Amino acid sequence: MKLYYSPGACSLGIHILLEEIGKPYELSLVALKEGAQHGAEYTAVNPKSKVPALDTGDGGPALTEFPAIAAFLAIANPEAGLVPRDALGQARALEAVDYVTGTIHPHAFTRQFRPNVFSLREEDHPAVIEQARANADKFFGVVEKIWRGDTWLLPQGFSIADAALFFVEYWQAKRVGGPLPPKLDAHLKAMLERPAVKRALEQEGLSA
Amino acid sequence: MKLYYSPGACSLGIHILLEEIGKPYELSLVALKEGAQHGAEYTAVNPKSKVPALDTGDGGPALTEFPAIAAFLAIANPEAGLVPRDALGQARALEAVDYVTGTIHPHAFTRQFRPNVFSLREEDHPAVIEQARANADKFFGVVEKIWRGDTWLLPQGFSIADAALFFVEYWQAKRVGGPLPPKLDAHLKAMLERPAVKRALEQEGLSA
Repeated sequence: MKLYYSPGACSLGIHILLEEIGKPYELSLVALKEGAQHGAEYTAVNPKSKVPALDTGDGGPALTEFPAIAAFLAIANPEAGLVPRDALGQARALEAVDYVTGTIHPHAFTRQFRPNVFSLREEDHPAVIEQARANADKFFGVVEKIWRGDTWLLPQGFSIADAALFFVEYWQAKRVGGPLPPKLDAHLKAMLERPAVKRALEQEGLSA
Repeated sequence: MKLYYSPGACSLGIHILLEEIGKPYELSLVALKEGAQHGAEYTAVNPKSKVPALDTGDGGPALTEFPAIAAFLAIANPEAGLVPRDALGQARALEAVDYVTGTIHPHAFTRQFRPNVFSLREEDHPAVIEQARANADKFFGVVEKIWRGDTWLLPQGFSIADAALFFVEYWQAKRVGGPLPPKLDAHLKAMLERPAVKRALEQEGLSA
């Protein structure tokens, strides 16, 4: 298996899951800042020009979309215990992953990191960034409110939901310097203590 | 089970899956145009103020996020054959669902239907809508290119991916009046012939 990633991008969540599973895999750097995602080499891997993408080694095209890759790794590696075993438990894990990737990532962080996606005028960027920060507070508040586990998001224990939540918490705390509600702040700290998270951060050249 | 929906919204995809499964369920209308999604009654069901949401009848909070609901229905009803049985096949189905809900829906259609989400100024709305239409052509082109099945998206046959793809094809053809590439146009027609799709459209008061 080979993970296409960019340091500190949302691919970090998949990188963590690969470290949790502990089987051999390769990393392939896609230099987003240099526009490598739009080059012919990478669009042959993923025509959507995004990370993460995972070459599963089956000879088919790379698997794309964070929730699909996370679900694949969890289902294909049941011994790693990355999702609950029952249908509703699996759906609860996916529900949290989808909220992170479909709402928190675009509307709290893409809005800050690439305000041009949400405005045609450069003079509107400060207002778009302000919206994004208000969204971050609102969205993290929703997660705090629907928290159903103890240290980890789900009552069944650590899951793909925690790996997804980690990358937006990490962005909020380390990249933006913004606040996190108490349960999420404790979750970020607990994640930073996991050996798999430490290894993934170190491999991507990121601080804990 | 109870599905919270709005006629013609993306909840239509979940409505179709419930009809495909054929077990009893209830429908609960959320009048999005009247802002019912922000009222106390609905935010108690789904604090994210969105449809679809599914009360699974387990006594817990309603399940939210289209891909999570679709995966739950598929896994909990294996006899309906709504996803392939293997991990990679399930991930391929989810990958397509995620592309529809995370990319095509927001950047091709929310951009057209609610341009204020992507611009702070009303005078920029026509340009935002134009962007959205170009995105629709690009995104549907990606789906056409990665099509791996025959009538249905996956080579294994009909799946949750087809139900997700249907609602954006339906928006493009019936609501926007925009073009679809040949495989997607044929897919829309094939979907409109399925009895479950006919029933869902009729129940939502929509034309076939």
